[in-house]
Amino acid sequence: MSKINPKFAVILAGCGNFDGSEIHETTLGLLAIDEQGGSYDCYAPNEEQGRTLNFYTKQVIAVKGEPANRNMLQEGARIARGQIKPLSELNIEEYDAVIFPGGQGTINNWCNYAQKGINCDVLPEIAHTMEKAYALKKWIGAMCIAPVIVAKVLGKNGVHLTIGNDKQTADNIEKMGAIHEVRTAIQACIDKEHRIATTPCYMLAKSIKEIYAGNTELVKGIIENL
Amino acid sequence: MSKINPKFAVILAGCGNFDGSEIHETTLGLLAIDEQGGSYDCYAPNEEQGRTLNFYTKQVIAVKGEPANRNMLQEGARIARGQIKPLSELNIEEYDAVIFPGGQGTINNWCNYAQKGINCDVLPEIAHTMEKAYALKKWIGAMCIAPVIVAKVLGKNGVHLTIGNDKQTADNIEKMGAIHEVRTAIQACIDKEHRIATTPCYMLAKSIKEIYAGNTELVKGIIENL
Repeated sequence: MSKINPKFAVILAGCGNFDGSEIHETTLGLLAIDEQGGSYDCYAPNEEQGRTLNFYTKQVIAVKGEPANRNMLQEGARIARGQIKPLSELNIEEYDAVIFPGGQGTINNWCNYAQKGINCDVLPEIAHTMEKAYALKKWIGAMCIAPVIVAKVLGKNGVHLTIGNDKQTADNIEKMGAIHEVRTAIQACIDKEHRIATTPCYMLAKSIKEIYAGNTELVKGIIENL
Repeated sequence: MSKINPKFAVILAGCGNFDGSEIHETTLGLLAIDEQGGSYDCYAPNEEQGRTLNFYTKQVIAVKGEPANRNMLQEGARIARGQIKPLSELNIEEYDAVIFPGGQGTINNWCNYAQKGINCDVLPEIAHTMEKAYALKKWIGAMCIAPVIVAKVLGKNGVHLTIGNDKQTADNIEKMGAIHEVRTAIQACIDKEHRIATTPCYMLAKSIKEIYAGNTELVKGIIENL
């Protein structure tokens, strides 16, 4: 059953694929929501990033605790054009779905999967957001590498999700209790039972139009099943 | 006449609407290019921004010469996923069009229009890029407020362009010698004689899908007239 004007909360981890939220994935997620008749609000943890890079040289310029390190809320605000709130202010009950775009910020800022793999620790605010959305039967959407955090937090429920076809990541997802399904860049995995929608994005996409195609499938999959 | 695989150079001023290139406008410009069969490369001046903001508080945190101020190439690289070159390496002859997305970086980093209006000074590298593209009969595309720089540099040629319908900005554009044409957010002004394509973007747009619609018109207007 579709719904008029479904509301999406979009959670950000910074601004940019190497240390924050992937910009194309986030922007084209927002476009897909708008084009499919939804509306959105953006949120981010008001916390330091795990690290900050110079995107031209690809060098790490600061890590947690250093003055040049950046903040997820302040940087996520760049993608949101300043219209963003701290994640602590998110009232999930007001929304139909919570979306987690990809980017390396998800595995360096929201958790330490980049360092510790399946034994990673998840930022309590992010884990709580996923757990509460799941308990309230809200849809959870995750792009690119972000589904590994869904697997870590909700894998115990046997959720189905995709990160594309990368064998090591898919194996890790299954070790955390989730079921991995292979998808192409322009497809999404829509787990209607657990209300989880995922799409590979830049885990597989070769072009920006593939990001938009995959995100459109993700958003449609959610809206058609509200 | 259309052309197979037209090539676009996209010029960035940083990352974010308050101090760099507007992220949605840039990303949806790249999407429009890809969807319409073109390809793109990104460039930015390897120069400091005029200023850097905290996008959550909207406060200026640094201006030119201060350590916390940011660099257009390093920040533009965030939107380009690290795939960017210094503007000094741009060979315009390799491209069919040069695109200038909007954002306040265009009027604070590429020139000082934000402070000096029609008496602004334009960064020589940006002025040179526009002049050379015009001389070589390449298409120039500009979004949002960026057309004021086109007016400053190329207004003497009587180019036609739009920033939407803001009277003061339109008056300034005409004082600089260009002809302003009113457009809505989902339209573009296509000056076939001078090969200039402009669209209002967030000067008027009320939603992200209007940005995509306007940018699609801009890119189509260029490709159909190559």
